[in-house]
Amino acid sequence: MKETLTIVKVGGAVVEDDQQLSRLLQDFGAIKGRKVLVHGGGRRATKVAAQLGIETKMVDGRRITDAEMLEVVTMVYGGLVNKQVVARLQAGGLNAIGLCGADAGIILSHRRPLKNGIDYGFVGDVDRVDGDTLSALIEQGLVPVVAPLTHDGKGQILNTNADTMASATACALARHYDVTLIFAFEKPGVLANPDDDSSLIPVITHDSFQQYKADGTISGGMLPKIENALQAVEQGVSRVIITQATAIDGTHGTVIVG
Amino acid sequence: MKETLTIVKVGGAVVEDDQQLSRLLQDFGAIKGRKVLVHGGGRRATKVAAQLGIETKMVDGRRITDAEMLEVVTMVYGGLVNKQVVARLQAGGLNAIGLCGADAGIILSHRRPLKNGIDYGFVGDVDRVDGDTLSALIEQGLVPVVAPLTHDGKGQILNTNADTMASATACALARHYDVTLIFAFEKPGVLANPDDDSSLIPVITHDSFQQYKADGTISGGMLPKIENALQAVEQGVSRVIITQATAIDGTHGTVIVG
Repeated sequence: MKETLTIVKVGGAVVEDDQQLSRLLQDFGAIKGRKVLVHGGGRRATKVAAQLGIETKMVDGRRITDAEMLEVVTMVYGGLVNKQVVARLQAGGLNAIGLCGADAGIILSHRRPLKNGIDYGFVGDVDRVDGDTLSALIEQGLVPVVAPLTHDGKGQILNTNADTMASATACALARHYDVTLIFAFEKPGVLANPDDDSSLIPVITHDSFQQYKADGTISGGMLPKIENALQAVEQGVSRVIITQATAIDGTHGTVIVG
Repeated sequence: MKETLTIVKVGGAVVEDDQQLSRLLQDFGAIKGRKVLVHGGGRRATKVAAQLGIETKMVDGRRITDAEMLEVVTMVYGGLVNKQVVARLQAGGLNAIGLCGADAGIILSHRRPLKNGIDYGFVGDVDRVDGDTLSALIEQGLVPVVAPLTHDGKGQILNTNADTMASATACALARHYDVTLIFAFEKPGVLANPDDDSSLIPVITHDSFQQYKADGTISGGMLPKIENALQAVEQGVSRVIITQATAIDGTHGTVIVG
């Protein structure tokens, strides 16, 4: 039987709020078994960019990353956010190790080609996660803390979506472990009525998703999230959980299974 | 017989110059056996701080690190410089992994107490390097690239002198390897006449150092460097080499032995 491994992806809004981050790191520490934390940091990057007089341009929620912005996200994601999270996890007795995709070559990507005429700049689309190297680190007792940066193998760091990195990492580690992938965000999970937090859908399967999609229960930005989650499950991830950042113990939120 | 391991410490002036860095990384890649790179980045930190409107204060060549400056060095050393070096080494076929002292808990320090009434702020003095964890990573085929940041084990990142970190790392790894520690800087080595690059002193021993010190051949800022090197040798490091950044193959510069 495979050992259990939990990957928690947490967005910038949580890691940049001291109180929320403390709570999250404590809850993360309490998760049993092997684990990995994947973090964002976009709001902090936007703030540092503004302080440096660099304008943040977004298209469909994605950051346009020119050479200057790449330096900002490399500093903020790989340095500021990552190292502070690592130091705090270490203080909690967890042997955390901060990694971006370039470190130990764990996540290789290629620069995104023009999409609908839009040049996203130094943005990477993930090609391959090296699950063997990652699991070797994990089996050494380490807890990877992954910043949303990858590399192209030719010396170029690329800004990369943290959700995508978490999914790809979960899929790569599914050969080695019984993987639970948790997306921590601001809502209790997938809601039948977005305005009513008590309308949580506890379980979504491939079949029930088609139903929810057809009858309009699930729509908008939640659709690609769940499609990605179902894809991860198809690729061997045992379960994907979409839940509030204050409820990452695996018993809350919406569970997406095959 | 122990395996050989080479630790190269390179200062900010080299890592921040694209051409010099390329040359250095190529030469570093050519070094046989296990290896570790320790880098600085002070000039870049000063530049980013200035862009953010933060004034750099130095006392005796050491950076006063208040909370704002700590964020800058965490970004620049741990993020910008470290990840760029890692990506470039990866491109050269080296399985580099970027680490600060907090990562995998490799280097623990304590905040420096007031010295002669000077508060250096968030500056760490090294307590302990975890040579077991570092060598486990190295035996996995990884090449650590170490940024000059440590942690106090209580969640605090601390700005730390890269020379000191390189020495302490060399001493800790001497139990595991036959260690050569190379300090790469702008001069060909220790010079009898600082204005004459051909006046290189090829070998310094404990005894000859006393002589050079007594007759004034070696003086000023070179004295503490050599004292530290001799200390490392006493603690088991096989040899310390002080050499030019363009000559790190182990056959150039001044060799300091016991």
